[in-house]
Amino acid sequence: MANQIYSTVPRSSWNKRVNPDLDIERKNKSFNVERLTNILDGGAEFTQKRRQVGTYLQGLETTATYDASTQEFVLNTPTLSATKWWPGDLGRTATHALILANLYSSGRCHGMHGFILPIRSLQDHSPLPGITVGDIGPKMNFEQTDNGFLQLDHIRIPRENMLNRFSQVLPDGTYVKQGTPQSNYLTMIVLRVQLLASEFIPALVKACIIATRYSVVRHQSKIKPSEPEAKILDYQTQQQKLFPQLATAYAFHFIDEIVIEFFKKSYQEIINGNITNLPELHALSAGMKAMMSDHCILGAELCRRACGGHGYSLLSGLPSLVTKVTASCTYEGENTVLYLQTARFLLKNFLQVQSSQSTPTLPQSIQYLASAGSGRCPAQRTSDFLSPQLYTEAFAHVAARLIRNSAQKLHNLTSSGIDQYVAWNQTAILHLQAAKAHCYHFTVKTFVESLKKLEKEPEIYQVIKRLCDLYALHGLLSNLGDFLYDGYMSRAQVELATEAYFSLLSLIRKDAILLTDAFDFSDESLNSALGCYDGNVYERLFEWAQLSPTNTEGNPAYEKYLRPFLKNNRSKL
Amino acid sequence: MANQIYSTVPRSSWNKRVNPDLDIERKNKSFNVERLTNILDGGAEFTQKRRQVGTYLQGLETTATYDASTQEFVLNTPTLSATKWWPGDLGRTATHALILANLYSSGRCHGMHGFILPIRSLQDHSPLPGITVGDIGPKMNFEQTDNGFLQLDHIRIPRENMLNRFSQVLPDGTYVKQGTPQSNYLTMIVLRVQLLASEFIPALVKACIIATRYSVVRHQSKIKPSEPEAKILDYQTQQQKLFPQLATAYAFHFIDEIVIEFFKKSYQEIINGNITNLPELHALSAGMKAMMSDHCILGAELCRRACGGHGYSLLSGLPSLVTKVTASCTYEGENTVLYLQTARFLLKNFLQVQSSQSTPTLPQSIQYLASAGSGRCPAQRTSDFLSPQLYTEAFAHVAARLIRNSAQKLHNLTSSGIDQYVAWNQTAILHLQAAKAHCYHFTVKTFVESLKKLEKEPEIYQVIKRLCDLYALHGLLSNLGDFLYDGYMSRAQVELATEAYFSLLSLIRKDAILLTDAFDFSDESLNSALGCYDGNVYERLFEWAQLSPTNTEGNPAYEKYLRPFLKNNRSKL
Repeated sequence: MANQIYSTVPRSSWNKRVNPDLDIERKNKSFNVERLTNILDGGAEFTQKRRQVGTYLQGLETTATYDASTQEFVLNTPTLSATKWWPGDLGRTATHALILANLYSSGRCHGMHGFILPIRSLQDHSPLPGITVGDIGPKMNFEQTDNGFLQLDHIRIPRENMLNRFSQVLPDGTYVKQGTPQSNYLTMIVLRVQLLASEFIPALVKACIIATRYSVVRHQSKIKPSEPEAKILDYQTQQQKLFPQLATAYAFHFIDEIVIEFFKKSYQEIINGNITNLPELHALSAGMKAMMSDHCILGAELCRRACGGHGYSLLSGLPSLVTKVTASCTYEGENTVLYLQTARFLLKNFLQVQSSQSTPTLPQSIQYLASAGSGRCPAQRTSDFLSPQLYTEAFAHVAARLIRNSAQKLHNLTSSGIDQYVAWNQTAILHLQAAKAHCYHFTVKTFVESLKKLEKEPEIYQVIKRLCDLYALHGLLSNLGDFLYDGYMSRAQVELATEAYFSLLSLIRKDAILLTDAFDFSDESLNSALGCYDGNVYERLFEWAQLSPTNTEGNPAYEKYLRPFLKNNRSKL
Repeated sequence: MANQIYSTVPRSSWNKRVNPDLDIERKNKSFNVERLTNILDGGAEFTQKRRQVGTYLQGLETTATYDASTQEFVLNTPTLSATKWWPGDLGRTATHALILANLYSSGRCHGMHGFILPIRSLQDHSPLPGITVGDIGPKMNFEQTDNGFLQLDHIRIPRENMLNRFSQVLPDGTYVKQGTPQSNYLTMIVLRVQLLASEFIPALVKACIIATRYSVVRHQSKIKPSEPEAKILDYQTQQQKLFPQLATAYAFHFIDEIVIEFFKKSYQEIINGNITNLPELHALSAGMKAMMSDHCILGAELCRRACGGHGYSLLSGLPSLVTKVTASCTYEGENTVLYLQTARFLLKNFLQVQSSQSTPTLPQSIQYLASAGSGRCPAQRTSDFLSPQLYTEAFAHVAARLIRNSAQKLHNLTSSGIDQYVAWNQTAILHLQAAKAHCYHFTVKTFVESLKKLEKEPEIYQVIKRLCDLYALHGLLSNLGDFLYDGYMSRAQVELATEAYFSLLSLIRKDAILLTDAFDFSDESLNSALGCYDGNVYERLFEWAQLSPTNTEGNPAYEKYLRPFLKNNRSKL
C-alpha cells in the first residue's frame, strides 16, 4: 500500500526549497563531500548503482484564544507542524475531539488546557467548517486502528467547552486556577501502569510460548552423531536465546503486581490531596514503562528470530506480536525521555542523601542509595550466585555507583563554568545508564520479594526461583563491565556466575514447556501455526498456507504476463 | 490478510492428537502446573482475562532413487516435513525447479545431489501429475516475492536431469564421484559475500540517512530554557543512538571491499584447484554474513526508533527497511549456526598454535592468535584511545582470550569424560562469544587498514578516522566486561575511553549530514517522507497521507456501522 502511495507523488517538485536546518548543516563543509561520494561509490563491487538522482507540551502550537465579546474560544492550528497527528479513531470515526491547546485570555498565555470540540456533522459525518481531518496513512501494524490528523482554522466553541476541574475562564476573560497542577501527571501515570500488563507483558509471554513449543517440535542436526536429530531446545545456544526471555516474562508478571499495588495505594492518597508519593510514582511508572517496553520488544523479536524462517511467516503469529509491541517504545512517553525523567528523580534524591547530615527518609524504591557502599561481592562458590540477597546487593551497588558517577560528572562540568542545562545534556548518556541500572535493580529486588510469597509452595517456589536467578544472572552477565569496573566483582567470581548461569539453563530446560503452558493462553489468542498447544506445527502451517488468496483465487498473472513471456521465449529458442 | 486466513481455520479439530515431543515434555511434571496457572492468573489487575479456551542438509528427507530398468530417477517427498518451503518464484511462477535430494542407487545412499524437475505444464501452467505446489502465505515483508511450497509423489525424470559436474550415475546405476566435494561450499560463500553489499549494508545506510536528516529537521524541547527548541540531533542521547550506526555503516562499507578482494582472489584459486584458502574464506564469509546482518538489523531498527512516532509510519520508509533486512538473520545460513562454523575454524587453528613447537603459518585473519599475549592496555590519556593500533590490539587481546577460554573449557569437559559432542554443546555459548569477538576484531582491523589508504586525502581521512575510532570505542564500551575481566583495562582507562567516545560524538555531530549525503542515495531509493534531501518532512508527510485509500475512497463504514450506531445512541440519550 505504501508503495502505491509513493508512486503517485510528484516528488521532484520538492527539491526546490530545502529546509533551512538542513541547509545550514550542509553549508560549513569540513571536507569535500563529492570526493567522499566518489570513494564510496568506487568501492563495493556488488553494490547496485545507486545514483539516479510531541513530547514537549510547552512547545504546543495549537492556540485557544478567548473572545469575551461572544464568550467563545477560538481554536487554531497556525502552522503545518501544529497539525494533530496519530490520535486513534480520529481519521474516519470520531464526532468529537478533546483538543489540547495553549490558552490565551486577556492577552496572556495560561499554558495547556483541554477543550471539547465537535469535529464532524452529526447529520452526515462530514467535517465541520474550518476542520481538515483524515487518515495518516499506512503503519507498521495497527492497521485496524483509525489513526488520524486534524487541522483547525479559527474554530469557535462556547466557553463551557473548556475542561475546568483545575482552572477556568470567567465570562469576562479572567483566568482562575484551582487545585494542584501536579494532578496533571496522573493521567499519564495511569496509562503507563495499565500498559505494562495490557500490552507489553502479554506480547513477550505469547512470543515465549510460541517459540518454546516450536523448539521442542522442531528437530535439527544432531548433537551426537549416533543419535537422531535433536530438538532445537536442547541446544545451549537456543536455551540462551529463549530462557532469559521466559525469565523476564515471569519477572515482569510478578513485578507488575507490586507496581499496581503501589499505584493503587498512592493514587488513593493523591486523590485525597496527599501528593507525597507522586514523585516516586511518576519516576517508577516512567522507568518501568521504558524498561518493560524495551525488554518486551527485544524479547519478542529474539523469540521470533529463534524460530528461523518460520518465525518470519505471519502464520507463526510472531511478526505481528513484534511489529505491534515495538510501537510501545514511543507511545505514552518516548523511552529515552522517560528514563531521563527517572534519572532526575534519582539525582535529586542522591543530592539530598549527600547534603544531609543525618540519614534522610528516602522513597522506598531508592532506599538502597543510603546503604549501598563500596564493599565487594562476597561470593566464593557457584551456589552463592543463586542467593537472592547476594545478587540484589550487587545490583544495588552498581545502580548506586552509576547514580553517584553521573551526579559527580554533572557537578564537575557545572563547577568548571558550563551552563547547567548544557552540562545535563553533556552527561545525558550517564544519566540514562544510571536510570537503567536503577530500574534493573528495582525489578530484581521486586521479583525476589514476590518469590518470598511463594515459599509455602515448595515445588512452585523452586521452579520460579530458578527463573528469578536466571533473570538476575542474565542481567549481570549482560552488563558485566558495570560489575567489574570498580573491582566489585573479581575474575574468579565471573567464572562462578557463568557456571551458575549455565547450570540454570539446563535445569529450566526440563520445565520449559510446563512453564509456558502455565500462562494458559488459548490457541485462539496465540494465533500461531507454530505455537498451538497440540504442537502440530507442520500440519497447521500446510493447512493455513492453502487458504492464502494466491492459492484460492487463481493465477491472473499467468494469463497476463507469464504466458506471453513463456511463449515468446520459447519461440526464440 | 493473516487474520483472514486464521479465522477460517477450524482449529479446534487439532487438539486431539498432540505432538509426541510436546507430550513427553508435559509428562514428567516437576510441579503442579494448574497451581502455577492460578497464581499467574490471580495476579495482575489489568490483565485481560485470557482463558477462553533446513540448515541440516544431512537430514534431507527428499529422495531420488535411481531405476536402472528405465534409466530414470524417482523423486519423492515421503513425509509432510519433507515439503520444500520458502523457495522464491515457486508458488505461482516457476516452470522448472532444481531439487536437492538424497540420491539412492544400487541400494545405497550417496548423499545430497541436485536434479532438474519440470513442475508445471508448459501448455497451461497447471502443476504436473504428482506435484503439489502453491504459495506459503503472508510474510513479514517480501510480499512481492512468490515464496512457495512443493511436494513430490514419486515423480520420474530422465537420468540426464541430474547435475553431474562433481558426480554422476551411469546407466547401470554405478555411482561415480569426480572433483573435490569442498567445492560444494562455494555456492553458499558466493551468495553470502554478495549479500553484504546488496542487502545488509544498504538497509543500514538508508536508515542512517533518513534518521539523521529527520533529526536536524525535527525540533523538540529546549536544551537551554532561554533558547528555541533544539534539533533533536543536538541531544547527546540521540547522537548515542545514531552515530554508532553511521560509523558501522561506514565500517561495513570499507570492510566489504576487503572481503570482496579476498573472495575474488581465493575464488580464482579454488576454481584452479588450489583450496588452501577455502577454510578461511568459508569461516570469514560465514562470520561476516552473521555479524553484518545482525548489526544492520539492529542498527536499522535503532534508527527507526530514533524517529519516534513517525518512524512507525510506513511513510517514513523505515519499517519496510527493518522488516526486510530482519529476514537476513535466517536466510542463507542461520546466524548462530554460522558463528559456530567460524568458531570451529578458530578452535582448530588455536589448537594448532598450541600444539606446534614453532610458530605455525596461520591464515591471515587469525594471525593475532599467535601474537596476542597477556599484556595490558598501555593507554595513559584520552587521546591514546584514538590510536588505531591501540584499540586494534585491545580487540585482538579479547578475541584471543575468548578463543583460548572456550578451547580450555571444552578440553576440561572432555577430559572429565564427557562425550566430545555433548561437551561442544555445553560450551556452545562460549564458542559463540569467541566467534563474535573474532569477527569484531576483524572488522576493526580491516576498517583501520582501509583508513590508511585515505591518508593522502587529509580532510577525508580525518572525518573517516573519527568514524573508525567511534566504531571501535562503541564496540569496546558495549562489551566492557570482556576488556576488564582479566585486568587488560583498568578503571581509569575506562574513564579515558568514555571521554574519548563522548568527544567523538560532538565532533561527528558537525559532519553528520554531510556524511549521510555522501552516500548519495536518491530520494526515490530512500522512499521516505522523513529522509528526503530537501528535508521538507511535514509537507511531504501531509501530502502523502492524503493519498491513503481511506482518504480518497470514501467512508463506507459510516453508512454501514457508524450511522446506525450514532442514531441509536442519540435516541437513547
